[in-house]
Amino acid sequence: MKKNTSIIGASGYSGAELLSILLRHPQINVTRVFANSSAGKKVSELYPLFRSTYVGTLTYEEYALDKIQSDDIIFIALPSGEAMNYVPALVDAGKKVIDLGGDFRLQDTTLYQKYYKHEHMAAAYLPKAVYGLPEWNKKKIIPAQLIANPGCYVTSALLPLLPLVKENLIEPTGITISSMSGVSGAGRKSSIDLSFTEVNESVKAYKVGTHQHTPEIETVLRDFGGKDSTVTFAPHLIPITRGIYSSIYVTPKSGLTNDILDASYKKYYTSAPFVRLIGDAEPEIKNVQYTNYIDIGWKMYERNNQVILLSVIDNLVKGAAGQAVQNMNLMFGFDETESLL
Amino acid sequence: MKKNTSIIGASGYSGAELLSILLRHPQINVTRVFANSSAGKKVSELYPLFRSTYVGTLTYEEYALDKIQSDDIIFIALPSGEAMNYVPALVDAGKKVIDLGGDFRLQDTTLYQKYYKHEHMAAAYLPKAVYGLPEWNKKKIIPAQLIANPGCYVTSALLPLLPLVKENLIEPTGITISSMSGVSGAGRKSSIDLSFTEVNESVKAYKVGTHQHTPEIETVLRDFGGKDSTVTFAPHLIPITRGIYSSIYVTPKSGLTNDILDASYKKYYTSAPFVRLIGDAEPEIKNVQYTNYIDIGWKMYERNNQVILLSVIDNLVKGAAGQAVQNMNLMFGFDETESLL
Amino acid sequence: MKKNTSIIGASGYSGAELLSILLRHPQINVTRVFANSSAGKKVSELYPLFRSTYVGTLTYEEYALDKIQSDDIIFIALPSGEAMNYVPALVDAGKKVIDLGGDFRLQDTTLYQKYYKHEHMAAAYLPKAVYGLPEWNKKKIIPAQLIANPGCYVTSALLPLLPLVKENLIEPTGITISSMSGVSGAGRKSSIDLSFTEVNESVKAYKVGTHQHTPEIETVLRDFGGKDSTVTFAPHLIPITRGIYSSIYVTPKSGLTNDILDASYKKYYTSAPFVRLIGDAEPEIKNVQYTNYIDIGWKMYERNNQVILLSVIDNLVKGAAGQAVQNMNLMFGFDETESLL
Amino acid sequence: MKKNTSIIGASGYSGAELLSILLRHPQINVTRVFANSSAGKKVSELYPLFRSTYVGTLTYEEYALDKIQSDDIIFIALPSGEAMNYVPALVDAGKKVIDLGGDFRLQDTTLYQKYYKHEHMAAAYLPKAVYGLPEWNKKKIIPAQLIANPGCYVTSALLPLLPLVKENLIEPTGITISSMSGVSGAGRKSSIDLSFTEVNESVKAYKVGTHQHTPEIETVLRDFGGKDSTVTFAPHLIPITRGIYSSIYVTPKSGLTNDILDASYKKYYTSAPFVRLIGDAEPEIKNVQYTNYIDIGWKMYERNNQVILLSVIDNLVKGAAGQAVQNMNLMFGFDETESLL
Repeated sequence: MKKNTSIIGASGYSGAELLSILLRHPQINVTRVFANSSAGKKVSELYPLFRSTYVGTLTYEEYALDKIQSDDIIFIALPSGEAMNYVPALVDAGKKVIDLGGDFRLQDTTLYQKYYKHEHMAAAYLPKAVYGLPEWNKKKIIPAQLIANPGCYVTSALLPLLPLVKENLIEPTGITISSMSGVSGAGRKSSIDLSFTEVNESVKAYKVGTHQHTPEIETVLRDFGGKDSTVTFAPHLIPITRGIYSSIYVTPKSGLTNDILDASYKKYYTSAPFVRLIGDAEPEIKNVQYTNYIDIGWKMYERNNQVILLSVIDNLVKGAAGQAVQNMNLMFGFDETESLL
Repeated sequence: MKKNTSIIGASGYSGAELLSILLRHPQINVTRVFANSSAGKKVSELYPLFRSTYVGTLTYEEYALDKIQSDDIIFIALPSGEAMNYVPALVDAGKKVIDLGGDFRLQDTTLYQKYYKHEHMAAAYLPKAVYGLPEWNKKKIIPAQLIANPGCYVTSALLPLLPLVKENLIEPTGITISSMSGVSGAGRKSSIDLSFTEVNESVKAYKVGTHQHTPEIETVLRDFGGKDSTVTFAPHLIPITRGIYSSIYVTPKSGLTNDILDASYKKYYTSAPFVRLIGDAEPEIKNVQYTNYIDIGWKMYERNNQVILLSVIDNLVKGAAGQAVQNMNLMFGFDETESLL
Repeated sequence: MKKNTSIIGASGYSGAELLSILLRHPQINVTRVFANSSAGKKVSELYPLFRSTYVGTLTYEEYALDKIQSDDIIFIALPSGEAMNYVPALVDAGKKVIDLGGDFRLQDTTLYQKYYKHEHMAAAYLPKAVYGLPEWNKKKIIPAQLIANPGCYVTSALLPLLPLVKENLIEPTGITISSMSGVSGAGRKSSIDLSFTEVNESVKAYKVGTHQHTPEIETVLRDFGGKDSTVTFAPHLIPITRGIYSSIYVTPKSGLTNDILDASYKKYYTSAPFVRLIGDAEPEIKNVQYTNYIDIGWKMYERNNQVILLSVIDNLVKGAAGQAVQNMNLMFGFDETESLL
Repeated sequence: MKKNTSIIGASGYSGAELLSILLRHPQINVTRVFANSSAGKKVSELYPLFRSTYVGTLTYEEYALDKIQSDDIIFIALPSGEAMNYVPALVDAGKKVIDLGGDFRLQDTTLYQKYYKHEHMAAAYLPKAVYGLPEWNKKKIIPAQLIANPGCYVTSALLPLLPLVKENLIEPTGITISSMSGVSGAGRKSSIDLSFTEVNESVKAYKVGTHQHTPEIETVLRDFGGKDSTVTFAPHLIPITRGIYSSIYVTPKSGLTNDILDASYKKYYTSAPFVRLIGDAEPEIKNVQYTNYIDIGWKMYERNNQVILLSVIDNLVKGAAGQAVQNMNLMFGFDETESLL
């Protein structure tokens, strides 16, 4: 029997991507789409690509708890700071919840407040939150009630870094992550800074050293990699719609060889259906667009005692909606790749 | 001695383009920049490309009539419907005025109201307005006090059409103008529809048959071409920053040959410094970007008794600020091409 | 049991798109991929997006007739002029063939030679060719052995035009088709004219009045619409990867109303799974990208006695590989939409 | 009196940019344009933007030494490895030469051969070559006969780095330079990899750790900064036409403060007309496009003991043709900024 789901915050780009994946999922039925700012409009008004699909005929509604009683799982695709207003009641009502935002990714509320610039209002529910990085946390994801879906940049950085940190092959401190992101990562917003004329034919670094994904990367490197890490993270906005490119500069511990690198990646990812290891080669964003794959390449740079890790994902899929569905597949015992290949 | 000028509405894209041209104009001094919405900010805050130029250090101000007393000429680069609130007092104060917007282009206020969707509040000043298409109205532009600078699409359509209409070589009715414009034509605005993610990798027709440049094209074809004309005008938004491509489908009168076409264009444009005739060839937007040129090509299509005219301009230069400076050069007796080549 | 297929010309963009659709088709097995110029390379070398799929591990081969003996159907995705070297032997061998190129679309070899600039070398096989426009020719497609898959521009023009021509609602002559295409339509080629730097931030009309899709449009309007038609067709290259926008200017016969237009489109397309009628609205390319849909809108422009038809498709899907699979689905009795929704 | 100049390799993007700058230079006359591959074509055939200028009417010629006898200075804008075939005879003939390529930038021919993959054929002329970075080498540039114009990436990296290395404020080793470049940097070439469809909506790192600009950066940091340096340099190709963004990660020596950073940059660049210091802010490529400026920003990241330097240039102007003209201005005693502001 199909599982019922609703989406809170279904009018943004992640929400729309989620709709398009769930639409083709044979075991899922989308019951309602909540979006306060667009309440009363049909999904196909905002996203005409859904014309002539059942998702397109759904109408955005204002959220109310009694509207989701028949749902098995709720996705939240709201800007950070908003999910924590919904999660407590949903969890109390026994619903499974996957939050695509940042509210339940950091267990440390002081760190949360420092980087998100507002207080955490649902700290009591943090212990229930399971970090939804399937390649590293599958056992806890399967029985979880509340999933904190990883950040987009974070996903692109962690999957190449974790095997090397965990295996003690690189220095866990002094990691430099230089990332480029497409504009959909900034969300569906009316803003001069995101207008075509301002973004096209340009590049801009932003939030260098202060981006909220910085503590998330360091926390996960500690929790899953087992090392206290420090990273310098510099994101750049580039004129493409979808995709993240992360170039990561690390210092190898002595004795690291290409063969060891290769073996370590294989050890962790041979059975990971969405990780593609491309070895001593450069990945390209176009090869993962509209997919849930991450492509990971690497360059040993012995002359300078450096290793450069290169990864690409689609920020809306593996960096958001796709990974969320991957988590859901695990939680319901579906095939992990269902509707994602 | 230098002429002084101020710009009302200097914070939009046309205003900024105007600033960059006036900055290099040896006979012009920009005294003030008015922009109510940005008052108090430096020009270089909105447009960092002006850093380290005197234009960049100017501060946007709220407009007041007493601030422009020492100016010789005022440019208005406001959305249509706003210039008419400023023009009467400026004209009464004896200032020369060039309005880059649509408020003084149509002498017929009924037509104005129909297409601009609001009443004309300064109809008494319309008789003073001279249509600023230098290639066709130079004699009246030189002594004018108030210039209505042509619309961007209009410029791209009129320059190829006028010689043929005037010389009675094509049917003046049933003209089809299919145009594509870069996004800067929509102005500097915060709007989801103009965001990178919505515009990139897409195309959208808009205001088909209802665009306010339609009556302007027909009026000028009548006034300067001497024929009652009807045009079907369909603009399309395409993912480039600058430029307009107009493909114009007309029916030749009998006997029209390529040689006659060629001779007619030469008759009108041999001494026009910004019109480049490329004959039986296809123009490309990149060849006119950041310039005041219009490139005009044409295709005789005898099989179907059609002629296809193709033109390209930079919407912010020949379609707005460049043409405005061209008009100013004429009004002050400067070289017509000063700071425009 | 699955059907076996091979692709001749599998290294171009249409071929790759075909691979990606066939890859997810549950009733199809891709046996071989032929591409003389890339023989010996794996598919994933040219198209790394296929890494880790069985299609990616296939190796491009030189074509030989004995290699396709076990296939049920052969797709040909070669430049026009090449398919006719392969089709005769394939047809003689009893294979089903779908040609994505132009070699079998025009029954009139004189017309073919005029527009394709070379002689037709397989004229004897033209009578076997069925024009693969499913919305208009389904009965003949189902039992066909040889399908001539329609041209990309042609598809975008015919689907809006045919109901109106067939129902005698518009003048069949004097039709103006102004189209814009993404760069993938030009194929995977090394050429300065197609380089990023030349195409980006520009637009260029090309082959105005001489494009080989012109006679195809006219022929089909006559054969399926029942009228002798003439069209003026002007394609434009624009800086997007995928998509065609066609703006079509026609003259209505007297008495045509929006209601009649609406009813006529519904009459022909209510049960067409890939035609989305959007009425008096403007379609956008982004809504059909990566899909087999065509969105059709229209504008009655009574003032000038014109109707403007607007359509969008993805040139690689509905304009090529998707439509080819739609035809195959019909030929094998599969669901028409299998792997295309 | 005007100086005469010819360009060898005038058909590439740097050559065309050079033409457009020299065209507006009041003290320069372009006499001939050499381009073996395009000999016989007019400049305006390859670059129609030059239509109706005297540069546009010039015809590309095959080079011969006797054709440049009346020239005062020769620019060479050829791919690396070719200039060294022309320079010896030009120098022997007493001509001033500015080479925009890499052949005379490295005094160490072993290093040259390692990175450029071919032998140096004109090593005897290396001692005459002066490195053309005006902000750091003006005294030697003024009387020079042969200028090695810096590489584009190199310029973007050196100008932010040199003051800090020279003043001993940062560790000279372990410098990480993550750069993004527009596609014009790859030259005007027919190549599938540079086609619009392959580059658009994607990003690709290339030559990571092996790019020929790596030894150039290190050499200049030693020669002008006075320290033995090592840099890890990773260039990325991004879908814009013009511009380079360099994000540079360095380790401060103890005691470095924002004030010291600020003072050091001012010390070296207060009178540098093309260096704009933007302090603790992020530069954007669009602010320097079509200009000879470099914008430099920086971020102290005390938490991780890092400083991040951010710079932007137009690769064809400050990264190539503009800097070459800046050098020429110095060599002839013209105003350093002539035709570059």
